[in-house]
Amino acid sequence: MLWCGMADTPSGLTWSLIQEARERIAGKVSVTPVLTSSTLDVDAGAQLHFKCENFQKSGAFKARGATNAVFALSPEQARRGVATHSSGNHAAALARAARLRGVPAYIVMPDNSPQAKRAAVARYGGEITYCEATLAARESAARELVAATGATLIHPYDDLAVMAGQGTAAVELLTQVAGLEVILCPVGGGGLISGTAVAAKTLNPAARVIGVEPTGADDAARSIRAGRILPCVKPDTIADGLRATLGERPFAVIGRLVDDITTVSDELIVRAMRRLWEVMKIVVEPSGAAAYAALLGERPELRGRRIGLILSGGNLDLERLPWSAPSSPSLTPARG
Amino acid sequence: MLWCGMADTPSGLTWSLIQEARERIAGKVSVTPVLTSSTLDVDAGAQLHFKCENFQKSGAFKARGATNAVFALSPEQARRGVATHSSGNHAAALARAARLRGVPAYIVMPDNSPQAKRAAVARYGGEITYCEATLAARESAARELVAATGATLIHPYDDLAVMAGQGTAAVELLTQVAGLEVILCPVGGGGLISGTAVAAKTLNPAARVIGVEPTGADDAARSIRAGRILPCVKPDTIADGLRATLGERPFAVIGRLVDDITTVSDELIVRAMRRLWEVMKIVVEPSGAAAYAALLGERPELRGRRIGLILSGGNLDLERLPWSAPSSPSLTPARG
Repeated sequence: MLWCGMADTPSGLTWSLIQEARERIAGKVSVTPVLTSSTLDVDAGAQLHFKCENFQKSGAFKARGATNAVFALSPEQARRGVATHSSGNHAAALARAARLRGVPAYIVMPDNSPQAKRAAVARYGGEITYCEATLAARESAARELVAATGATLIHPYDDLAVMAGQGTAAVELLTQVAGLEVILCPVGGGGLISGTAVAAKTLNPAARVIGVEPTGADDAARSIRAGRILPCVKPDTIADGLRATLGERPFAVIGRLVDDITTVSDELIVRAMRRLWEVMKIVVEPSGAAAYAALLGERPELRGRRIGLILSGGNLDLERLPWSAPSSPSLTPARG
Repeated sequence: MLWCGMADTPSGLTWSLIQEARERIAGKVSVTPVLTSSTLDVDAGAQLHFKCENFQKSGAFKARGATNAVFALSPEQARRGVATHSSGNHAAALARAARLRGVPAYIVMPDNSPQAKRAAVARYGGEITYCEATLAARESAARELVAATGATLIHPYDDLAVMAGQGTAAVELLTQVAGLEVILCPVGGGGLISGTAVAAKTLNPAARVIGVEPTGADDAARSIRAGRILPCVKPDTIADGLRATLGERPFAVIGRLVDDITTVSDELIVRAMRRLWEVMKIVVEPSGAAAYAALLGERPELRGRRIGLILSGGNLDLERLPWSAPSSPSLTPARG
């Protein structure tokens, strides 16, 4: 049944790394449920299976990769702690994993990170350093932290242990739902879709793996077309988790194993998010709704298909929903 | 194992009616999941098991009672249709059940019902008549509809088939989670807690059943103390599903089988709702969060307990959240 090795990629991400990740993180992260909705099936004219990583520990799939990376360290490495720069969900996940292992986590966050994501890092005991919201500022602040502490840098996505951990979500999905024909997966830095692609092409090679990214952060689509990484210099999207530029290792996997990358507008992302909340009664963040947003556009090739969608996370500021006015923190509605 | 008959009540609600309901509605409503959260367990100092009726068909437990009532009708009765007056969730549930059986549903709704609840009735093909938001206006409009159409009035809660159907949620909960010591259940008209109490006292007589109602609609607490129904003349609570006055049949069950009724402020309800959204990533309406709100107050007697909570529904206007300012319907955030 398991067709090993054939989906291994030049980036070094292998099926056996994903299997090891699965064993390493078992019991430390959740096996998340797959939900279905007859209403959304009718809307889409397809059979949709939502892998609910918004229900994952720390509220996003990032718990998988971070936990795998932290527990793969030697005791000596781990003792000095871990560090990262992250738009938020990886940061909280890393702080949580470090706490599970009993070691420090040093976190560099862009100063425009949502309040909910900052609070999550703090809740798990991560030590936060804020920086400007550019990749250069993030990387430089992280380098300084590592130099000062001896901590191991755990990159949010350009890291084999992280990519392998993220792949465990798709392993579960493919085990929970037989015969998927398409898997829709959001693309930010590329860690999730890399693991997803290796898992899918190993367990169910006939399944098409389609990446979904915001029109305002379409570096993966452009990079794949160009055959080299074209950074996302000024990402402009509500999906804060998808603003990162594709990493080198994910790029290698995507180029070889991902069947297509499609883009969705922020308007579709917000509509998708609202529809998931309204019909499925689940809280999904904009990045998490991107995969479903692809189904709200014109996608005749997806009609009638058996589709898995990864709802990647559910962390966002509930006071600042994209369909509501900014609010005062009190319970009394402000004047409109 | 099943200890039948002992929890049957003078209202006529029996364990066997609940068993019949369970068989009748099987496959027509969802078996909803029970979710847990280690974060909320730590907050409460107790083991919490959330019965997610917000994931139920039509977005609330009301699907159970309405479906049981509609499918219990004779073919001749059913043909003429069904009617009701409802604050919303029963209305949508009845419209859905009628559509499943292929018969008309005539719905009287108070004109202050949330937009999301009106839309749900319309989506299921219910014919809506609006009236003033008083019990008298609702009952009179419903009587006229029944006289004009020959439809059968399906009361939202003062109806044995409805009460029996609602009890199936607790049957599932008690089957899904062994050894519950306490069940917290919201109280509006009393249909849900009646069925819950009969189910609990039959399947697990040691479990305490505690009703939770808003301070601004505390007719059940006052009525039980007084030994007679004291109507809720001007309910004042954000929990629109709990504004109804206790029915005669539910009153009889509650007086005999419910161990306690406790009240919670709207402020606690909103805090509870927000916390469920934030931590559990699920959409719960104010009425649905009432049971959890009881745990945010001072409840030393609940500490350390194994508790089941019924999250009764998840239908609300996402544009009008109690922690956000009123919004424009566009996607563009309004000026604060």
